[in-house]
Amino acid sequence: MARPQAPRGQGRARVLAAALELFALHGVSGTSLQMIGDHLGVTKAAVYYQFHAKEDIVLAVVESAVEQLRGHIEAAEAAPTPEESTVVALDGLIDVVLAHRQVVASMLSDPEVTRILEAHEDFNDLTTRLGEQLLGPEPSQRRAVAVPLLALGIAHAGADPHLVDMDDDTLRAEMRHLGRVLVEASSRTP
Amino acid sequence: MARPQAPRGQGRARVLAAALELFALHGVSGTSLQMIGDHLGVTKAAVYYQFHAKEDIVLAVVESAVEQLRGHIEAAEAAPTPEESTVVALDGLIDVVLAHRQVVASMLSDPEVTRILEAHEDFNDLTTRLGEQLLGPEPSQRRAVAVPLLALGIAHAGADPHLVDMDDDTLRAEMRHLGRVLVEASSRTP
Repeated sequence: MARPQAPRGQGRARVLAAALELFALHGVSGTSLQMIGDHLGVTKAAVYYQFHAKEDIVLAVVESAVEQLRGHIEAAEAAPTPEESTVVALDGLIDVVLAHRQVVASMLSDPEVTRILEAHEDFNDLTTRLGEQLLGPEPSQRRAVAVPLLALGIAHAGADPHLVDMDDDTLRAEMRHLGRVLVEASSRTP
Repeated sequence: MARPQAPRGQGRARVLAAALELFALHGVSGTSLQMIGDHLGVTKAAVYYQFHAKEDIVLAVVESAVEQLRGHIEAAEAAPTPEESTVVALDGLIDVVLAHRQVVASMLSDPEVTRILEAHEDFNDLTTRLGEQLLGPEPSQRRAVAVPLLALGIAHAGADPHLVDMDDDTLRAEMRHLGRVLVEASSRTP
């Protein structure tokens, strides 16, 4: 079908959903507009009508995650105490990772995505703000190690093959618990 | 110099050290035999005399890490109790990551390295054994989440830009402490 029959918004959503499935299977670098078309049973031209390059699809996925993350960070920044800010930021990070669980690992380790993210100033700004909320003011040396360990661990574990059969709610609850344990263990003693 | 003047063993070590420096700067995919030669002030042919392909250099780096890991896993398997096995495996993982701290993240996320590791049956067998020692017998659901979170967090945090100024001993001590905290928090209650 050279001319999509669905309205453009719906067509975009279908292309995005198909792209995410294929990214999870083949990685971003291993997925082409042609493969997305084949998966949807439409021509490559129909995919092209929605997104002119794979980079635009990656950007759309990234932007949806960035918007989610922004909301969580703003909530963390508005929390009444640094301790609460840290926990709100932690829970937000876990939610964003789990919302993109199937693709987050392949996207994190894909050089094409890295290049797109590095060029995305907004994203760099948000990860800095996320780091600040997770660290808290005047972080201990232990907190300085706990934050990257926890953030990178959550991001990569979300797609770990050993956890693929664990449902989102169980995984969310366990990650929240383990995250709080590390935050607590790296708090400055009073 | 078309004919290396140092004995072969020493030449190999110099090429490996230069390759590791360049992998850390440019990633594995972004490093060529020519670049390694330029870095050492020798011809590409002199590098070729030691390693016929970049894959052989990657394999040599991986094999050194695999040998280290094997020693730690054997020690973990020989520990008298499952609790001690978990801690020995944890400390071993931290040591292997810190010994390759500059390159571990770029190597973990490099598709070329992934392909080499996947073909390396020995490595897959070792990561399975490492997982078994970290999980312990009949792991709780919490431990099943804690292990990938911790292992992937340690592996990726080792090269985190925020921790680049922290010396190995401090980072090792903090990672060991945080690891023990998560192991403890995910132990079966008696």
